[in-house]
Amino acid sequence: MFARLANRPDVVSFATGAPDPALLPGELVTSLAGDALARYGNSVLQYGMTRGFGPLLEQAHELLLRRGIDRPDGTHIATGGSGALHNICLALLEPGDVVLVETPTFAPAVKVFRSHGARVVTVASDDHGILPESLDIALVRHDATVVYLLPTFHNPTGRTMPVARRQQVADVLARRGALVVEDDVYTDLRYRGEPVPALSSYAPDNSVYITSLSKTLAPAMRIGITAMPPELLARVLVLKQGIDMQTSTFTQAIAAEFLASAASRAHLARTVASYGAKLDTLVAALESAMPSGFTWTKPEGGMFLWVTGPPGFDADAVLDRAFDAGVAYLPGSIFHTDASDAMRLSFAGVPQENIERGVKLLAEAM
Amino acid sequence: MFARLANRPDVVSFATGAPDPALLPGELVTSLAGDALARYGNSVLQYGMTRGFGPLLEQAHELLLRRGIDRPDGTHIATGGSGALHNICLALLEPGDVVLVETPTFAPAVKVFRSHGARVVTVASDDHGILPESLDIALVRHDATVVYLLPTFHNPTGRTMPVARRQQVADVLARRGALVVEDDVYTDLRYRGEPVPALSSYAPDNSVYITSLSKTLAPAMRIGITAMPPELLARVLVLKQGIDMQTSTFTQAIAAEFLASAASRAHLARTVASYGAKLDTLVAALESAMPSGFTWTKPEGGMFLWVTGPPGFDADAVLDRAFDAGVAYLPGSIFHTDASDAMRLSFAGVPQENIERGVKLLAEAM
Repeated sequence: MFARLANRPDVVSFATGAPDPALLPGELVTSLAGDALARYGNSVLQYGMTRGFGPLLEQAHELLLRRGIDRPDGTHIATGGSGALHNICLALLEPGDVVLVETPTFAPAVKVFRSHGARVVTVASDDHGILPESLDIALVRHDATVVYLLPTFHNPTGRTMPVARRQQVADVLARRGALVVEDDVYTDLRYRGEPVPALSSYAPDNSVYITSLSKTLAPAMRIGITAMPPELLARVLVLKQGIDMQTSTFTQAIAAEFLASAASRAHLARTVASYGAKLDTLVAALESAMPSGFTWTKPEGGMFLWVTGPPGFDADAVLDRAFDAGVAYLPGSIFHTDASDAMRLSFAGVPQENIERGVKLLAEAM
Repeated sequence: MFARLANRPDVVSFATGAPDPALLPGELVTSLAGDALARYGNSVLQYGMTRGFGPLLEQAHELLLRRGIDRPDGTHIATGGSGALHNICLALLEPGDVVLVETPTFAPAVKVFRSHGARVVTVASDDHGILPESLDIALVRHDATVVYLLPTFHNPTGRTMPVARRQQVADVLARRGALVVEDDVYTDLRYRGEPVPALSSYAPDNSVYITSLSKTLAPAMRIGITAMPPELLARVLVLKQGIDMQTSTFTQAIAAEFLASAASRAHLARTVASYGAKLDTLVAALESAMPSGFTWTKPEGGMFLWVTGPPGFDADAVLDRAFDAGVAYLPGSIFHTDASDAMRLSFAGVPQENIERGVKLLAEAM
């Protein structure tokens, strides 16, 4: 799909999950780099501690506290959220282990688990996320200890697990001695509603929390932030020495300046305003254009919305026709769900002025 | 050792292998970051291709050509030299595989091989590097296909494999269908003598070449450059998607600007002049101060020199006394050699004015 898109710049793409390039803060990053050099000197260009750059670890602790996580002794800086996931897989998984995932789920994570030899098993989920009873049964049946979840502004559906469900899932984890890997990289992109504490905050001893600055500062910084039980962190850090020794001190120092600055709050506010307006435009366009029988999620934030078609609709079958007509999406089937009637629409990276046209083309192709 | 050093800033440390912080080009990096943003726009902050940022791949190809390696279809950008080594280990090694290494060798690489379940076997070496006949025998005896070598300005000894030896080693590799992982991160730090083509240039189909910009630009950029057979690269790139998705587009763009600029040549010349002068000072101080019976290598570049003591000298036993007296080194025993009579002196990061004093303290402690 992405190779095809590269050759068709005219296509309105709801497929790509990347941030809006127009919102990436080029001048801000350059000026933060200068600030970091002025404040910390050449140490920002030198080798640093595997665990992370001290000032960024302090900022990370503050950020985690705002999400309900108090783990200064369990935090480290990884090379992006994907680097964090790789590190933890190396530390946790043996070939043949089972990793449980909600359905649908973020497909690249499944590839990562499988590349570590794990067997991935989907667990039934509803609009509020994974079903606690199904999780409980699956943990026992598969002798599993690891479950991967994306509780907030879920990729691909945009759904968010409510507080009550978080508490129920945390209870199951604690009862079974299992560990959740909580992938929480969209949580600052909230357009309405009240913030929800991280799932990990309800199960501090049964969780690995992963977030990143890729969606709020820039993907190219490759800054992941994690929190986990300290004894697990110790194993991860030994492994990280051999994985990439350390994450760039330079981009870590820029990230520390970013999180400490008023400019970061202003930049985040601009991003939230822009993406929120796009989501509103997308929902209004779907309401006015889509044929009857189609429904969609109502995300309070993030980058994704999930459209489900009427009985008999096949999102895979329509893909080529939609693409030829000038609009792209990702069919739900790639996200490890049995449903072939769904599709993911990613709105954050689409120029605001293209959204209505894209939805019209989509509606015509359906 | 490094934890002890952190508490004793007065100690002259020949132990640390990091670049001289005074030479790290802070202002240059900031200005290159601005240049990169001006030239490529916000794409330098966005997600990019797993293989690497196009303009840096082009510069990397030029750099590799200067070292005798013509592999544009086998090049990728890794997250530092250590990231490159991790990627290739994931692609090449199964638990129980044997990795051959010269002796002494770079100890952290051995830790990496072992973390991938490999058994590491040392092969006899002399002042010119690994012995071709011993390599040949070891490849057959251990049913091994991978050998890890540091042919130029070797860490820890500073020795360089001459051209004739490179050709002999390449012949063995080709005959046995084995693969060398060539770790070549010091090669631009040449203070005298003529450049030698990379070992990989003599065995293009039997080599994985790894270099980085950590010693010439800055460690914090985390830029590794590799060349390998294209079919192996394809496997590495699939794995890298799950390891860290991609190396920072931002530091890659800075690196591309650096390699394309006259400023990089000026900066490298300054670095070479400074480190070369330190090596001269170190050798002169050793000649005037060390007790008889001590000998040392005569490196033409790099960051390390290897001192061997007289019969009965025990570098491990003297370490504490030297440290208390105010000078630190790394004992040879940690570099996977039977010899307990040797020590590694790292000179690049030591302030020029401390070298003579450090050697005097060292000589007194011996």
